[in-house]
Amino acid sequence: MNDKSKTTRPAAKPKARVAKGFRDIDADEIRGTREMLATIQRVYESYGFEPVEQPFIEYTDALGKFLPDQDRPNAGVFSFQDDDEQWLSLRYDLTAPLARYVAENNQGQLPSPFRSYRQGWVFRNEKPGPGRFRQFMQFDADTVGSSSPAADAEVCMMAAYTMEKLGIAKGKYIVKFNHRKILDGLMDALGLSGSENDQRRLIVLRAMDKYDRLGMKGVTQLLGAGRTDESGDVTVGAGLSDRAILAIGSMLMKKEISELIGPTNEELLCQLEDSEFAVNSTFAEGISELRQMDRLLLQSGYSGSRVAFDSSVIRGLEYYTGPVFECELLMETKDEDGKPVRFGSVGGGGRYDDLVARFTGQAVPATGFSIGVSRLYSALKLVGKAKTTQTLAPVVVTVMDKERQGDYWKFAQSLRGAGIRAEMYIGTGNMGKQMKYADKRGSPLVVIQGGDEKAAGQVQIKDLRKGAELAAGIATHEEYASQRLAQVSVPEAELVEQVKKMLQQ
Amino acid sequence: MNDKSKTTRPAAKPKARVAKGFRDIDADEIRGTREMLATIQRVYESYGFEPVEQPFIEYTDALGKFLPDQDRPNAGVFSFQDDDEQWLSLRYDLTAPLARYVAENNQGQLPSPFRSYRQGWVFRNEKPGPGRFRQFMQFDADTVGSSSPAADAEVCMMAAYTMEKLGIAKGKYIVKFNHRKILDGLMDALGLSGSENDQRRLIVLRAMDKYDRLGMKGVTQLLGAGRTDESGDVTVGAGLSDRAILAIGSMLMKKEISELIGPTNEELLCQLEDSEFAVNSTFAEGISELRQMDRLLLQSGYSGSRVAFDSSVIRGLEYYTGPVFECELLMETKDEDGKPVRFGSVGGGGRYDDLVARFTGQAVPATGFSIGVSRLYSALKLVGKAKTTQTLAPVVVTVMDKERQGDYWKFAQSLRGAGIRAEMYIGTGNMGKQMKYADKRGSPLVVIQGGDEKAAGQVQIKDLRKGAELAAGIATHEEYASQRLAQVSVPEAELVEQVKKMLQQ
Repeated sequence: MNDKSKTTRPAAKPKARVAKGFRDIDADEIRGTREMLATIQRVYESYGFEPVEQPFIEYTDALGKFLPDQDRPNAGVFSFQDDDEQWLSLRYDLTAPLARYVAENNQGQLPSPFRSYRQGWVFRNEKPGPGRFRQFMQFDADTVGSSSPAADAEVCMMAAYTMEKLGIAKGKYIVKFNHRKILDGLMDALGLSGSENDQRRLIVLRAMDKYDRLGMKGVTQLLGAGRTDESGDVTVGAGLSDRAILAIGSMLMKKEISELIGPTNEELLCQLEDSEFAVNSTFAEGISELRQMDRLLLQSGYSGSRVAFDSSVIRGLEYYTGPVFECELLMETKDEDGKPVRFGSVGGGGRYDDLVARFTGQAVPATGFSIGVSRLYSALKLVGKAKTTQTLAPVVVTVMDKERQGDYWKFAQSLRGAGIRAEMYIGTGNMGKQMKYADKRGSPLVVIQGGDEKAAGQVQIKDLRKGAELAAGIATHEEYASQRLAQVSVPEAELVEQVKKMLQQ
Repeated sequence: MNDKSKTTRPAAKPKARVAKGFRDIDADEIRGTREMLATIQRVYESYGFEPVEQPFIEYTDALGKFLPDQDRPNAGVFSFQDDDEQWLSLRYDLTAPLARYVAENNQGQLPSPFRSYRQGWVFRNEKPGPGRFRQFMQFDADTVGSSSPAADAEVCMMAAYTMEKLGIAKGKYIVKFNHRKILDGLMDALGLSGSENDQRRLIVLRAMDKYDRLGMKGVTQLLGAGRTDESGDVTVGAGLSDRAILAIGSMLMKKEISELIGPTNEELLCQLEDSEFAVNSTFAEGISELRQMDRLLLQSGYSGSRVAFDSSVIRGLEYYTGPVFECELLMETKDEDGKPVRFGSVGGGGRYDDLVARFTGQAVPATGFSIGVSRLYSALKLVGKAKTTQTLAPVVVTVMDKERQGDYWKFAQSLRGAGIRAEMYIGTGNMGKQMKYADKRGSPLVVIQGGDEKAAGQVQIKDLRKGAELAAGIATHEEYASQRLAQVSVPEAELVEQVKKMLQQ
């Protein structure tokens, strides 16, 4: 920071506004997310994964640049320079920091293979859009130190098992997998290898990634001369030959046919093996590794209906080297135009065998899966599976006599001791204002003790929910008042028991 | 970010190192902290506080500059400029962002008073030191919209109740409170009011804050001509008159006497009232407000032994306007030199009536308490009250035959289904390496099924804990081997039951 900030600081009152691309989160979402995270945690723990937490800030060079769509250096991340001139960045995912952690602690301290999980906020310095924020939470599980396809299969099965534990039934989600070597082999075979083709490869992969949304026509345009969308925006095409477009197109078509006839993973892999690209050795290696992965899936009862091969899975991040995964939810939701569409991806991952070697030069194989927490929570809400913990609003103990706050406070405290949420009113206001407050709070009950009740050793308990119900069926204000809502009077000593009883109703 | 980063980025391998002043957190601390946070959450919920979560990044002008010891503009915070030239900062506490939240959402959406809580990481761009990090977690509770001393008292009582719920017994902690107006009144009376005395006031408050550590001699020096410590470092003094030093000193002395004779809060307030400063109206107002606060404390059974007046409580943050609080743990620990000292502060807070008005111009009274999460966790560990959830390391299912991974995976999965942590070994390695892995993992049991066992429909379960115990009492390697450790063989169908039985031992 420097003097610039001084000059831009307004002398007048600052405007209270959340920063662009960020958001505040309300109580319902916090509680619902908390429950969801606890379930994921339990699953991951049951698979033997251990929690690790890392700082939000890392040296920029330790994070590396692996974001998709990153044209300028350090675009996409929030960065700043430290006192000692070193550049620091806010993490943009949880995988790059994990690689640093492993490289730093891998002198025998960690078991091998090392299974770990982590949840946390990550930051992207990108242009925000609707539903697209610059801070979001990921929940990752990673296995470091195993090159076995069993490790990849395990991560996919764990993702599937997690969905089911969260209440998303088998058939309502699918964990799809593909292999970078299949994509690389395809690029090779199409004459698109080498760094001079970086840009074209990216266009091809992005085009394939858009098949679900744009259909064959749009993809064909993107692979060829380019595409102009409805708004007139032009996307540059990859300029592939007709033969290449036909080859890629038929691979994507097969995917569409697959969805209709539901072949096994093995059938799909055989189909690839029969394709013209299989002469490419990278492509063939990919098929072989996926076949090993599928063996365990098959033996464990996860192949096909839960974890399925899908040649259209791309995953944008540049650090993947082997199998790549994506978890898609199949239930319907509405898109921006109100059209029904599949809910779509809630997470993904893959194998990143070179990420630790960036630091150490020594190959450390690794694979992992990352859940997009907010998206998954939205999905659970959509299907009515988001637990909102049924947190009841607190009972409000009203203050009739300011001199006797201590008594009211003790009422509240005795309720808390019995596990019941309770507040003593601490604003300034008469009974009407206090009742209005309780109403706004959504309180189920209020507790009242005036002078007469005190003298008789009694407390009143008013049921606001019942009051509202009664009021709904009552025409006039007089009738409303005459009902005196739903109200009981009990001895002080029975307060807790009575409140419990009324809350259970 | 700009081209500079490009030139500092090394072409060679980056070094894997956690950034200066940051740290990775291990599984034990994560699990222990998680339990502790859940307890605090339950308490705060039971008091009717609602969760709120806010972004890590706010506009710099919305956060304001309230850090102590802040000499340069924006020193102390991590900041960067957005695309649209606005300055953004990582939050340095959770109170300033809450003020923004309230100012932005206070058009009738929030109940009034509004009780909320939040936990989260905050960031300070400061020089790190031993045990002093640039990222740390706070857990805050705040009541906005009530100017009643009952709101201040409630927050203090809730802090006390939280300590007891965490297992810190009454008498092992104390929530201390003071009032900014008492400090301000004292400064007034000593002729140190006005902005021209900002620097001297700061020196005086810092000196008073150091009484516990430096004793009367050190404080007297700091209030007067200045102090030279053992290392030769010179601290500039406030240059007060002897009369002023005597007055402040006797106030601090009274605190020391208090600790010996344990007067009530009311006795202490009366003492202040009798002091020469009481003619100052600010000072007198402070006393009056504290007395109101103490009335509720007294009626509720919290005054004195749990929540005690202490005229030496300062709190550095500039935004406090009324009562200030500090929660101190009284059990002993060792300081850097190994000398026994009190554990000290684990949190604090106070009233900040002007923080929302910064934005809106309209006064919105507010008070709150913030817990330093890592410090509190260290304290709980020190007194053996940190729950480590007794998370057992997972059972390891070994792989004797790679072709049969699916069977092993199903063993693991059946254990998980019964709530037992289990892993299938996914590294490459013979039985010896797998046992070594299980050992390193701290696994209680391993499951083994070779060809013979498979043919007989049996599985072996080895108890590694017993093995270790036996080994400890056995002299020779032969004896060790002959014991065959502690090992049983059961039919496949009884695997889960048998593992459960052995884990319960």
